[in-house]
Amino acid sequence: MGASPTPRIPMPELLPALSQRRARRAFEPRPVQPDLLNLLWQAISVAPSHGNTQSARILLAESAEVHDRLVAALSPGNSHWAGAAPHLFALVALPAHETPQENSDGTLRDMWPFNAGIAIGNLMAQATFMGLTAHPMAGFDEPAVRAVFGAPPSVRVLTVVAVGYPGSPDSLPEDLAAKETMPQERLPLERILAVDRWDPVLEVSAREWRKQQQPA
Amino acid sequence: MGASPTPRIPMPELLPALSQRRARRAFEPRPVQPDLLNLLWQAISVAPSHGNTQSARILLAESAEVHDRLVAALSPGNSHWAGAAPHLFALVALPAHETPQENSDGTLRDMWPFNAGIAIGNLMAQATFMGLTAHPMAGFDEPAVRAVFGAPPSVRVLTVVAVGYPGSPDSLPEDLAAKETMPQERLPLERILAVDRWDPVLEVSAREWRKQQQPA
Repeated sequence: MGASPTPRIPMPELLPALSQRRARRAFEPRPVQPDLLNLLWQAISVAPSHGNTQSARILLAESAEVHDRLVAALSPGNSHWAGAAPHLFALVALPAHETPQENSDGTLRDMWPFNAGIAIGNLMAQATFMGLTAHPMAGFDEPAVRAVFGAPPSVRVLTVVAVGYPGSPDSLPEDLAAKETMPQERLPLERILAVDRWDPVLEVSAREWRKQQQPA
Repeated sequence: MGASPTPRIPMPELLPALSQRRARRAFEPRPVQPDLLNLLWQAISVAPSHGNTQSARILLAESAEVHDRLVAALSPGNSHWAGAAPHLFALVALPAHETPQENSDGTLRDMWPFNAGIAIGNLMAQATFMGLTAHPMAGFDEPAVRAVFGAPPSVRVLTVVAVGYPGSPDSLPEDLAAKETMPQERLPLERILAVDRWDPVLEVSAREWRKQQQPA
């Protein structure tokens, strides 16, 4: 019960909340306890944003009607599995809350999509830490998601996220079930990191690299 | 030494790697051990991206010359503290590696800034877990950062990040030293979360809300 903080001993390992994350598609039907859902929102809340603009917002589908309408706003590749997740929410942003960063050549940089990404990174780490799956989706129709919640056109939708306890891959169609346990393919570090000088090897996309790995 | 995984008991607390993160500006001068830096890059590597596009890249300043040129590419508000960080890197993205998501109204959604944000969220969690500070900055000149590393114009710079062990606030100018220990101001959850239906209270910006909190 003392006030001494946890000792900050560097651990030479990847944080399990990051290394154990998987974008699973199979969910148990049971809902997540409200206090755990609340911690997911807290994880978004504590995420940093430049100038502390906090432009991200969470639109949670709770009623069966809104849940179903949100599933219908997803791409076919997502709607056929995500509907089985007990919780779905949209992460949106309010670009008007920020002034874009200006470059010397007059071009601008919007920070709200990047800040929203940080927030979802936080949420996925918290979800993994609690034994949950949080699977963000890029395939959806943005005007349709706005319409589901009655959000104004000034609201930009970054992702729709399926949340729940991981379920059995057997609940999925065969092609998706296989994806649940496939090893995560990642570019080797030397293809994503350059020291002091740009390296053209960084321009090889993950898709091209995967092709190169396959026997001819 | 057994092969049994860590039990996944939901812990009703915010992951310390998220709750203990602070965007500190004071750094110890000592460098971070290479194996810990490597874990920061691993945290970026395991970050998810839609379709596993992995379009984020890390440009690390290692030589004194590149370090100094990168500091010079920062805004004045950042360059006067970030130069003291032992490590600086730029997180960049290759938008050409992605096909934008298309909406029913013909508008497009770029995912690369969002995916880069997830990657930096991962990196900050890993840094905090290891007792490090990783402080992403939005204030920099993008063409200047590209020039520092000789990166082509197709490369977009999302952030420059200062990394190191937290140092004493006494090493900072008085105004910045005070910021090190200020409580983190966050919008209450009911101002960032709406259930089933958009709520106009979500449109109040963090800046407006802070003003409302101050006594007239």
